[in-house]
Amino acid sequence: MAVRVDLNISLDGVASPADPSPEQPMGADWEALTAAYAATRTFRERVLGDTSGAGTTGIDDAYAAAYFEGVGAEIMGAAMFGLHTFPDDPSWTGWWGDEPPFRVPVFVLTHVPRPTLTMANGTSFEFLSVTPAEALERAEAVAGGRDVRVGGGTGVVRDFLRAGLVDRLHVSIAPIVLGKGGRLWDDVRMLAGDFTVTSETAESGTIHVTFQR
Amino acid sequence: MAVRVDLNISLDGVASPADPSPEQPMGADWEALTAAYAATRTFRERVLGDTSGAGTTGIDDAYAAAYFEGVGAEIMGAAMFGLHTFPDDPSWTGWWGDEPPFRVPVFVLTHVPRPTLTMANGTSFEFLSVTPAEALERAEAVAGGRDVRVGGGTGVVRDFLRAGLVDRLHVSIAPIVLGKGGRLWDDVRMLAGDFTVTSETAESGTIHVTFQR
Repeated sequence: MAVRVDLNISLDGVASPADPSPEQPMGADWEALTAAYAATRTFRERVLGDTSGAGTTGIDDAYAAAYFEGVGAEIMGAAMFGLHTFPDDPSWTGWWGDEPPFRVPVFVLTHVPRPTLTMANGTSFEFLSVTPAEALERAEAVAGGRDVRVGGGTGVVRDFLRAGLVDRLHVSIAPIVLGKGGRLWDDVRMLAGDFTVTSETAESGTIHVTFQR
Repeated sequence: MAVRVDLNISLDGVASPADPSPEQPMGADWEALTAAYAATRTFRERVLGDTSGAGTTGIDDAYAAAYFEGVGAEIMGAAMFGLHTFPDDPSWTGWWGDEPPFRVPVFVLTHVPRPTLTMANGTSFEFLSVTPAEALERAEAVAGGRDVRVGGGTGVVRDFLRAGLVDRLHVSIAPIVLGKGGRLWDDVRMLAGDFTVTSETAESGTIHVTFQR
Protein backbone atom coordinates (compact mmCIF):
# COMPACT_ATOMS: atom_id res chain seq x y z
CA MET A 1 0.00 0.00 0.00
CA ALA A 2 1.47 3.35 -1.07
CA VAL A 3 0.35 6.96 -1.06
CA ARG A 4 0.41 8.29 -4.61
CA VAL A 5 0.16 11.66 -6.24
CA ASP A 6 -0.16 12.43 -9.97
CA LEU A 7 -0.29 16.01 -11.22
CA ASN A 8 -0.07 17.92 -14.47
CA ILE A 9 2.28 20.86 -14.10
CA SER A 10 4.06 23.36 -16.34
CA LEU A 11 7.85 23.77 -16.51
CA ASP A 12 7.55 26.52 -13.92
CA GLY A 13 5.65 24.18 -11.61
CA VAL A 14 2.18 25.65 -12.04
CA ALA A 15 -0.47 23.02 -11.22
CA SER A 16 -3.39 25.43 -10.72
CA PRO A 17 -3.53 27.95 -13.57
CA ALA A 18 -4.40 31.53 -12.70
CA ASP A 19 -7.50 33.53 -13.54
CA PRO A 20 -10.39 31.04 -13.28
CA SER A 21 -13.61 32.35 -14.78
CA PRO A 22 -17.14 30.98 -15.28
CA GLU A 23 -16.14 30.06 -18.85
CA GLN A 24 -12.82 28.55 -17.78
CA PRO A 25 -13.28 27.41 -14.16
CA MET A 26 -9.87 25.71 -14.04
CA GLY A 27 -8.07 28.80 -15.32
CA ALA A 28 -7.31 30.17 -18.76
CA ASP A 29 -4.24 27.91 -19.25
CA TRP A 30 -5.86 24.65 -18.10
CA GLU A 31 -6.29 23.28 -21.61
CA ALA A 32 -2.67 23.97 -22.54
CA LEU A 33 -1.52 22.39 -19.29
CA THR A 34 -3.53 19.18 -19.66
CA ALA A 35 -3.68 18.83 -23.45
CA ALA A 36 -1.48 15.72 -23.65
CA TYR A 37 -3.39 13.95 -20.84
CA ALA A 38 -6.79 14.90 -22.25
CA ALA A 39 -5.72 13.51 -25.63
CA THR A 40 -5.07 10.00 -24.28
CA ARG A 41 -7.39 7.11 -25.00
CA THR A 42 -7.59 6.36 -21.27
CA PHE A 43 -8.74 9.88 -20.39
CA ARG A 44 -11.29 9.88 -23.17
CA GLU A 45 -12.72 6.56 -22.05
CA ARG A 46 -12.48 6.88 -18.30
CA VAL A 47 -13.30 10.57 -17.79
CA LEU A 48 -15.35 11.46 -20.88
CA GLY A 49 -17.06 8.09 -21.33
CA ASP A 50 -15.89 7.86 -24.96
CA THR A 51 -15.71 4.12 -25.73
CA SER A 52 -14.85 4.58 -29.42
CA GLY A 53 -11.17 3.83 -28.80
CA ALA A 54 -10.11 7.29 -29.97
CA GLY A 55 -7.11 8.97 -28.37
CA THR A 56 -3.34 8.60 -28.11
CA THR A 57 -1.87 5.25 -27.04
CA GLY A 58 1.79 6.09 -26.35
CA ILE A 59 3.74 6.97 -23.22
CA ASP A 60 1.22 9.57 -22.06
CA ASP A 61 -1.52 6.95 -22.23
CA ALA A 62 0.54 4.41 -20.30
CA TYR A 63 0.80 6.89 -17.42
CA ALA A 64 -2.89 7.74 -17.71
CA ALA A 65 -3.81 4.05 -17.47
CA ALA A 66 -1.49 3.56 -14.49
CA TYR A 67 -3.24 6.49 -12.85
CA PHE A 68 -6.41 4.48 -12.46
CA GLU A 69 -4.77 1.15 -11.54
CA GLY A 70 -4.50 -0.14 -7.99
CA VAL A 71 -6.11 2.78 -6.18
CA GLY A 72 -8.47 1.86 -3.32
CA ALA A 73 -9.33 5.29 -1.96
CA GLU A 74 -8.83 8.94 -2.87
CA ILE A 75 -8.32 12.13 -0.89
CA MET A 76 -9.00 15.57 -2.34
CA GLY A 77 -9.53 19.15 -1.31
CA ALA A 78 -12.87 20.92 -1.20
CA ALA A 79 -12.10 22.96 -4.33
CA MET A 80 -11.30 19.88 -6.39
CA PHE A 81 -14.63 18.34 -5.41
CA GLY A 82 -16.30 21.62 -6.31
CA LEU A 83 -17.58 22.65 -2.89
CA HIS A 84 -16.53 26.27 -3.46
CA THR A 85 -18.59 26.57 -6.61
CA PHE A 86 -22.01 26.42 -4.94
CA PRO A 87 -21.14 26.47 -1.23
CA ASP A 88 -24.70 27.15 -0.06
CA ASP A 89 -26.50 24.57 -2.21
CA PRO A 90 -26.77 21.24 -0.33
CA SER A 91 -28.06 19.52 -3.48
CA TRP A 92 -24.85 20.31 -5.41
CA THR A 93 -22.92 17.05 -5.77
CA GLY A 94 -19.71 18.52 -7.17
CA TRP A 95 -18.68 18.77 -10.77
CA TRP A 96 -17.72 15.14 -11.30
CA GLY A 97 -21.16 14.19 -12.63
CA ASP A 98 -23.30 11.14 -11.93
CA GLU A 99 -20.48 8.72 -12.72
CA PRO A 100 -17.31 10.17 -11.19
CA PRO A 101 -14.13 8.58 -12.58
CA PHE A 102 -12.88 7.50 -9.14
CA ARG A 103 -15.09 4.42 -8.47
CA VAL A 104 -13.67 4.21 -4.92
CA PRO A 105 -14.38 5.99 -1.62
CA VAL A 106 -13.28 9.64 -1.84
CA PHE A 107 -12.52 11.73 1.23
CA VAL A 108 -13.00 15.45 0.74
CA LEU A 109 -11.11 17.76 3.11
CA THR A 110 -13.32 20.65 4.14
CA HIS A 111 -14.18 22.81 7.11
CA VAL A 112 -17.89 22.56 6.30
CA PRO A 113 -19.49 19.23 7.25
CA ARG A 114 -21.90 17.67 4.74
CA PRO A 115 -23.65 14.29 4.56
CA THR A 116 -21.79 11.57 2.67
CA LEU A 117 -22.72 11.25 -1.02
CA THR A 118 -22.96 7.76 -2.51
CA MET A 119 -22.87 7.61 -6.29
CA ALA A 120 -23.97 4.74 -8.55
CA ASN A 121 -20.57 3.50 -9.75
CA GLY A 122 -18.72 2.76 -6.51
CA THR A 123 -17.71 6.35 -5.88
CA SER A 124 -18.67 7.91 -2.54
CA PHE A 125 -17.74 11.33 -1.19
CA GLU A 126 -17.20 11.63 2.57
CA PHE A 127 -16.47 15.08 3.96
CA LEU A 128 -13.81 15.35 6.67
CA SER A 129 -12.43 18.21 8.74
CA VAL A 130 -9.17 16.56 9.80
CA THR A 131 -5.39 16.72 9.33
CA PRO A 132 -3.68 15.09 6.33
CA ALA A 133 -2.42 12.23 8.53
CA GLU A 134 -5.92 11.60 9.91
CA ALA A 135 -7.46 11.66 6.45
CA LEU A 136 -4.85 9.17 5.30
CA GLU A 137 -5.68 6.85 8.18
CA ARG A 138 -9.35 6.93 7.20
CA ALA A 139 -8.54 6.30 3.55
CA GLU A 140 -6.17 3.42 4.26
CA ALA A 141 -8.83 1.78 6.41
CA VAL A 142 -11.15 1.41 3.40
CA ALA A 143 -8.58 0.99 0.61
CA GLY A 144 -8.47 -2.80 1.00
CA GLY A 145 -4.68 -2.93 0.80
CA ARG A 146 -4.59 -0.93 -2.40
CA ASP A 147 -2.96 2.49 -2.82
CA VAL A 148 -4.36 5.79 -1.63
CA ARG A 149 -4.24 8.66 -4.07
CA VAL A 150 -4.00 12.27 -3.01
CA GLY A 151 -5.76 13.77 -5.99
CA GLY A 152 -5.37 17.50 -5.43
CA GLY A 153 -5.63 20.41 -5.57
CA THR A 154 -2.20 21.88 -5.41
CA GLY A 155 -2.40 23.08 -1.80
CA VAL A 156 -3.59 19.71 -0.52
CA VAL A 157 -0.79 17.90 -2.37
CA ARG A 158 1.80 20.29 -0.92
CA ASP A 159 0.41 19.69 2.57
CA PHE A 160 0.89 15.92 2.12
CA LEU A 161 4.36 16.34 0.56
CA ARG A 162 5.56 18.61 3.36
CA ALA A 163 4.18 16.17 5.93
CA GLY A 164 6.30 13.43 4.35
CA LEU A 165 3.21 11.31 3.63
CA VAL A 166 3.72 10.72 -0.10
CA ASP A 167 5.47 7.54 -1.31
CA ARG A 168 5.24 8.19 -5.03
CA LEU A 169 4.90 11.48 -6.86
CA HIS A 170 4.42 11.48 -10.62
CA VAL A 171 4.35 14.79 -12.46
CA SER A 172 3.48 15.19 -16.14
CA ILE A 173 5.35 18.32 -17.13
CA ALA A 174 3.94 20.20 -20.11
CA PRO A 175 6.86 21.96 -21.82
CA ILE A 176 5.39 25.43 -21.42
CA VAL A 177 6.05 28.24 -18.94
CA LEU A 178 2.83 29.78 -17.61
CA GLY A 179 4.36 32.45 -15.38
CA LYS A 180 1.44 32.61 -12.93
CA GLY A 181 -0.81 30.33 -10.92
CA GLY A 182 -0.55 27.97 -7.96
CA ARG A 183 2.84 26.26 -7.93
CA LEU A 184 3.38 22.71 -6.72
CA TRP A 185 6.95 23.11 -5.52
CA ASP A 186 6.70 26.14 -3.24
CA ASP A 187 8.25 25.28 0.13
CA VAL A 188 8.78 21.70 -1.03
CA ARG A 189 12.22 20.08 -1.16
CA MET A 190 12.81 16.66 -2.76
CA LEU A 191 16.38 15.53 -3.11
CA ALA A 192 17.79 12.52 -4.87
CA GLY A 193 18.84 10.90 -1.60
CA ASP A 194 15.27 10.63 -0.32
CA PHE A 195 13.70 9.29 -3.51
CA THR A 196 14.58 7.30 -6.58
CA VAL A 197 13.84 9.63 -9.48
CA THR A 198 13.10 8.53 -13.02
CA SER A 199 12.27 10.68 -16.03
CA GLU A 200 10.91 9.91 -19.46
CA THR A 201 9.83 12.03 -22.42
CA ALA A 202 6.58 11.21 -24.24
CA GLU A 203 5.81 11.57 -27.93
CA SER A 204 3.84 14.74 -27.11
CA GLY A 205 6.91 16.40 -25.56
CA THR A 206 5.43 15.95 -22.10
CA ILE A 207 8.07 15.01 -19.52
CA HIS A 208 7.09 12.39 -16.96
CA VAL A 209 9.09 12.52 -13.72
CA THR A 210 8.47 10.03 -10.92
CA PHE A 211 9.77 10.29 -7.36
CA GLN A 212 9.57 6.90 -5.63
CA ARG A 213 10.46 6.59 -1.97
CA MET B 1 23.26 34.47 -35.83
CA ALA B 2 21.13 33.63 -32.80
CA VAL B 3 20.97 34.67 -29.17
CA ARG B 4 21.38 31.58 -27.01
CA VAL B 5 20.95 30.76 -23.36
CA ASP B 6 21.93 27.54 -21.57
CA LEU B 7 21.22 27.06 -17.87
CA ASN B 8 21.22 24.32 -15.26
CA ILE B 9 18.03 24.45 -13.23
CA SER B 10 16.19 22.26 -10.75
CA LEU B 11 12.65 20.96 -11.28
CA ASP B 12 11.38 23.97 -9.35
CA GLY B 13 13.28 26.29 -11.69
CA VAL B 14 16.09 27.26 -9.31
CA ALA B 15 19.12 28.40 -11.31
CA SER B 16 20.89 30.23 -8.47
CA PRO B 17 20.95 28.08 -5.33
CA ALA B 18 20.39 29.84 -2.03
CA ASP B 19 22.79 30.42 0.86
CA PRO B 20 26.14 31.14 -0.81
CA SER B 21 29.05 31.01 1.63
CA PRO B 22 32.83 31.41 1.37
CA GLU B 23 33.12 27.61 1.24
CA GLN B 24 30.29 27.27 -1.31
CA PRO B 25 30.17 30.57 -3.21
CA MET B 26 27.56 29.29 -5.69
CA GLY B 27 25.25 28.09 -2.92
CA ALA B 28 24.97 24.90 -0.92
CA ASP B 29 23.03 23.05 -3.65
CA TRP B 30 25.27 24.04 -6.57
CA GLU B 31 26.99 20.67 -6.80
CA ALA B 32 23.70 18.77 -6.82
CA LEU B 33 22.32 21.13 -9.46
CA THR B 34 25.28 20.84 -11.83
CA ALA B 35 26.49 17.30 -11.11
CA ALA B 36 25.53 15.84 -14.50
CA TYR B 37 27.12 18.73 -16.42
CA ALA B 38 30.28 18.69 -14.29
CA ALA B 39 30.61 14.95 -14.95
CA THR B 40 30.78 15.36 -18.74
CA ARG B 41 34.01 14.91 -20.64
CA THR B 42 33.50 18.30 -22.29
CA PHE B 43 33.21 20.14 -18.97
CA ARG B 44 36.23 18.36 -17.57
CA GLU B 45 38.32 19.26 -20.59
CA ARG B 46 37.05 22.74 -21.37
CA VAL B 47 36.49 24.13 -17.88
CA LEU B 48 38.85 22.08 -15.71
CA GLY B 49 41.61 21.60 -18.28
CA ASP B 50 41.53 17.81 -17.81
CA THR B 51 42.75 16.36 -21.13
CA SER B 52 42.75 12.73 -19.92
CA GLY B 53 39.47 11.99 -21.71
CA ALA B 54 37.70 11.19 -18.46
CA GLY B 55 34.02 12.02 -18.07
CA THR B 56 30.63 10.98 -19.44
CA THR B 57 30.09 10.91 -23.20
CA GLY B 58 26.31 10.52 -23.54
CA ILE B 59 23.45 12.96 -24.04
CA ASP B 60 24.62 15.34 -21.31
CA ASP B 61 28.01 15.58 -23.00
CA ALA B 62 26.47 16.24 -26.41
CA TYR B 63 24.70 19.29 -24.95
CA ALA B 64 27.88 20.35 -23.15
CA ALA B 65 29.83 20.20 -26.40
CA ALA B 66 27.12 22.13 -28.25
CA TYR B 67 27.35 24.77 -25.52
CA PHE B 68 30.80 25.77 -26.71
CA GLU B 69 30.13 25.49 -30.46
CA GLY B 70 29.43 28.46 -32.67
CA VAL B 71 29.50 31.21 -30.05
CA GLY B 72 31.23 34.42 -31.08
CA ALA B 73 30.58 36.61 -28.04
CA GLU B 74 29.18 36.27 -24.54
CA ILE B 75 27.18 38.54 -22.23
CA MET B 76 27.08 38.02 -18.47
CA GLY B 77 26.15 39.81 -15.28
CA ALA B 78 28.61 41.28 -12.82
CA ALA B 79 28.06 38.52 -10.29
CA MET B 80 28.81 35.78 -12.81
CA PHE B 81 32.10 37.48 -13.65
CA GLY B 82 32.83 37.77 -9.95
CA LEU B 83 32.78 41.56 -9.57
CA HIS B 84 30.81 41.34 -6.34
CA THR B 85 33.40 39.14 -4.67
CA PHE B 86 36.16 41.76 -4.43
CA PRO B 87 34.40 44.93 -5.60
CA ASP B 88 37.16 47.28 -4.41
CA ASP B 89 40.17 45.39 -5.76
CA PRO B 90 40.99 46.60 -9.31
CA SER B 91 43.53 43.78 -9.72
CA TRP B 92 40.81 41.11 -9.26
CA THR B 93 40.18 39.56 -12.68
CA GLY B 94 37.12 37.51 -11.76
CA TRP B 95 37.01 33.88 -10.81
CA TRP B 96 37.42 32.41 -14.27
CA GLY B 97 41.21 32.10 -13.92
CA ASP B 98 43.96 32.88 -16.42
CA GLU B 99 42.36 30.79 -19.14
CA PRO B 100 38.62 31.45 -19.00
CA PRO B 101 36.57 28.86 -20.92
CA PHE B 102 34.90 31.46 -23.16
CA ARG B 103 37.73 32.23 -25.65
CA VAL B 104 35.65 35.05 -27.17
CA PRO B 105 34.88 38.67 -26.21
CA VAL B 106 32.75 38.77 -23.04
CA PHE B 107 30.60 41.76 -22.11
CA VAL B 108 29.98 42.15 -18.39
CA LEU B 109 26.93 44.17 -17.38
CA THR B 110 27.77 46.37 -14.39
CA HIS B 111 27.09 49.79 -12.98
CA VAL B 112 30.78 50.17 -12.05
CA PRO B 113 33.05 50.96 -15.01
CA ARG B 114 36.40 49.13 -15.18
CA PRO B 115 39.11 48.88 -17.83
CA THR B 116 38.77 46.04 -20.33
CA LEU B 117 40.66 42.86 -19.40
CA THR B 118 42.36 40.92 -22.18
CA MET B 119 43.30 37.34 -21.33
CA ALA B 120 45.76 35.08 -23.12
CA ASN B 121 43.38 32.64 -24.80
CA GLY B 122 41.10 34.93 -26.82
CA THR B 123 38.88 35.85 -23.90
CA SER B 124 38.39 39.53 -23.10
CA PHE B 125 36.11 41.12 -20.52
CA GLU B 126 34.59 44.49 -21.39
CA PHE B 127 32.46 46.19 -18.74
CA LEU B 128 29.27 47.91 -19.88
CA SER B 129 26.57 49.89 -18.13
CA VAL B 130 23.86 49.55 -20.79
CA THR B 131 20.47 47.93 -21.47
CA PRO B 132 20.19 44.29 -22.60
CA ALA B 133 19.40 45.42 -26.16
CA GLU B 134 22.44 47.70 -26.25
CA ALA B 135 24.72 44.99 -24.87
CA LEU B 136 23.41 42.64 -27.52
CA GLU B 137 24.18 45.15 -30.24
CA ARG B 138 27.78 45.44 -28.98
CA ALA B 139 28.14 41.66 -28.79
CA GLU B 140 26.72 41.04 -32.25
CA ALA B 141 29.15 43.59 -33.69
CA VAL B 142 32.14 41.47 -32.63
CA ALA B 143 30.63 37.96 -32.91
CA GLY B 144 31.64 37.60 -36.56
CA GLY B 145 28.27 36.19 -37.60
CA ARG B 146 28.34 33.53 -34.90
CA ASP B 147 25.88 33.27 -32.02
CA VAL B 148 25.79 35.43 -28.92
CA ARG B 149 25.39 33.64 -25.61
CA VAL B 150 23.73 35.20 -22.63
CA GLY B 151 25.60 33.26 -19.96
CA GLY B 152 23.89 34.36 -16.75
CA GLY B 153 23.26 34.83 -13.98
CA THR B 154 19.62 34.14 -13.48
CA GLY B 155 18.51 37.78 -13.28
CA VAL B 156 20.33 38.74 -16.47
CA VAL B 157 18.84 35.80 -18.35
CA ARG B 158 15.35 36.74 -17.18
CA ASP B 159 15.91 40.33 -18.34
CA PHE B 160 16.80 39.07 -21.83
CA LEU B 161 13.89 36.59 -21.90
CA ARG B 162 11.37 39.22 -20.85
CA ALA B 163 12.76 41.61 -23.46
CA GLY B 164 12.11 38.95 -26.11
CA LEU B 165 15.78 38.90 -27.12
CA VAL B 166 16.44 35.15 -26.78
CA ASP B 167 16.18 32.89 -29.85
CA ARG B 168 17.12 29.61 -28.20
CA LEU B 169 16.83 28.63 -24.55
CA HIS B 170 18.21 25.28 -23.42
CA VAL B 171 17.68 24.21 -19.82
CA SER B 172 19.28 21.13 -18.26
CA ILE B 173 16.82 20.18 -15.54
CA ALA B 174 18.25 18.21 -12.65
CA PRO B 175 15.44 15.99 -11.28
CA ILE B 176 15.58 17.49 -7.79
CA VAL B 177 13.46 20.09 -6.01
CA LEU B 178 15.56 22.63 -4.13
CA GLY B 179 12.76 24.70 -2.63
CA LYS B 180 14.75 27.94 -2.42
CA GLY B 181 17.04 30.11 -4.51
CA GLY B 182 16.81 32.35 -7.55
CA ARG B 183 14.25 31.00 -10.02
CA LEU B 184 14.59 31.29 -13.77
CA TRP B 185 10.90 31.33 -14.61
CA ASP B 186 9.57 34.10 -12.36
CA ASP B 187 7.59 36.57 -14.45
CA VAL B 188 8.54 34.66 -17.59
CA ARG B 189 5.97 33.16 -19.94
CA MET B 190 6.91 30.85 -22.83
CA LEU B 191 4.11 29.18 -24.70
CA ALA B 192 4.23 26.54 -27.38
CA GLY B 193 2.96 28.93 -30.03
CA ASP B 194 5.98 31.23 -29.73
CA PHE B 195 8.65 28.52 -29.71
CA THR B 196 9.27 25.02 -30.97
CA VAL B 197 9.91 22.99 -27.83
CA THR B 198 11.84 19.73 -27.71
CA SER B 199 12.66 17.59 -24.69
CA GLU B 200 15.02 14.69 -24.14
CA THR B 201 16.07 12.68 -21.09
CA ALA B 202 19.76 11.90 -20.54
CA GLU B 203 21.28 8.77 -19.02
CA SER B 204 21.84 10.73 -15.79
CA GLY B 205 18.13 11.50 -15.44
CA THR B 206 18.75 15.10 -16.43
CA ILE B 207 16.00 16.49 -18.66
CA HIS B 208 17.07 18.70 -21.54
CA VAL B 209 14.39 21.10 -22.80
CA THR B 210 15.06 23.44 -25.71
CA PHE B 211 12.89 26.37 -26.76
CA GLN B 212 13.73 27.43 -30.32
CA ARG B 213 12.09 30.51 -31.81
